[in-house]
Amino acid sequence: MTTATRPQTIRFLQSPTRPDWIDQAVANLDTVLLDHSHCERKAAGVALNLMFRYPSSAALVRSLTAIAQEELSHFEQVNQWLDRRGIPLGPLAPSPYGAGLKAQVRRDEPCRMLDMLLVSALIEARSHERLGLLADHCPAPELASFYRSLMSSEARHYGAYWVLATTYFETDEVNQRLQELATVESELLATLHPEPRVHS
Amino acid sequence: MTTATRPQTIRFLQSPTRPDWIDQAVANLDTVLLDHSHCERKAAGVALNLMFRYPSSAALVRSLTAIAQEELSHFEQVNQWLDRRGIPLGPLAPSPYGAGLKAQVRRDEPCRMLDMLLVSALIEARSHERLGLLADHCPAPELASFYRSLMSSEARHYGAYWVLATTYFETDEVNQRLQELATVESELLATLHPEPRVHS
Repeated sequence: MTTATRPQTIRFLQSPTRPDWIDQAVANLDTVLLDHSHCERKAAGVALNLMFRYPSSAALVRSLTAIAQEELSHFEQVNQWLDRRGIPLGPLAPSPYGAGLKAQVRRDEPCRMLDMLLVSALIEARSHERLGLLADHCPAPELASFYRSLMSSEARHYGAYWVLATTYFETDEVNQRLQELATVESELLATLHPEPRVHS
Repeated sequence: MTTATRPQTIRFLQSPTRPDWIDQAVANLDTVLLDHSHCERKAAGVALNLMFRYPSSAALVRSLTAIAQEELSHFEQVNQWLDRRGIPLGPLAPSPYGAGLKAQVRRDEPCRMLDMLLVSALIEARSHERLGLLADHCPAPELASFYRSLMSSEARHYGAYWVLATTYFETDEVNQRLQELATVESELLATLHPEPRVHS
């Protein structure tokens, strides 16, 4: 990644990733890879759940079908990497990040829809930033280039969630809520979670 | 479809579809198409949920990733048909079929896993049979040929669920439980549900 493109990778995010996350991730590449597999499957699940909840919203259904397909393709690719590195598939306790963001989703519609779209946008934006950091710092060149290959999709995904938010809500409302959620998102990562994860 | 291949389409199923389902479906093609869209999205969701529940089962994860991808591709194709026929996306109350089968799933492992795999196999087998009937009886030739194009995937899917069941369980146990569930499956369709659905 060139430095010219770096600032764009953290659009939406209020704070860049702590340098100690990079050290933790690079020292625990296998665990981060297994967690990454779970992240891709969960991301596909989130897209499907949104389609299930808003079945009449044609733009949302169209856009999230493509995202879910891409997440599943990444899931498959990450699992091939696990296989190649001899890492068995298995459960892994998530970091508090996802639950912390989910707790911010307001319960009543239409706020719920806006919050779910923006939480997904923020998670994709952070994933994009962190895959970029892995691409830059991972000592295994082939794995680094795999991370780099995923980055453009993650960027498209956070863009797509943002576009959906502005399709169904006024831009001012979207911007204000995004700022609030982005503050929480950065706070959730202000202390490094002791277990190495994509979002530790 | 040739008559030579027809018997294979209902492997696993104890009773063939009632003739009045065909009349109901052909008289309500648009509703059946909308329901079909929901069925494909739900099928992708079921595959993802199984992967979520059994994250260490590598054969299951590999096979269901491919199934989920295919279901999403069908979902997209069915939605294009909805668009072409001017049918708006929207919610649709399901027939009692899915919930009736789900109620048969035993709660404790490993029975739960076996039952979930076999219920999915039966739903895919029935879908395969009914898409074949739509292909044979649908008066719109292009739509009929679309239904025919989906049939081989559905056949692969029920085969894949069967293979997974026999990967994790003894064949005798699988056969016996399949027979029990297939009896319920046919009973659930013994009376035509008044609302036209893929599984009415």
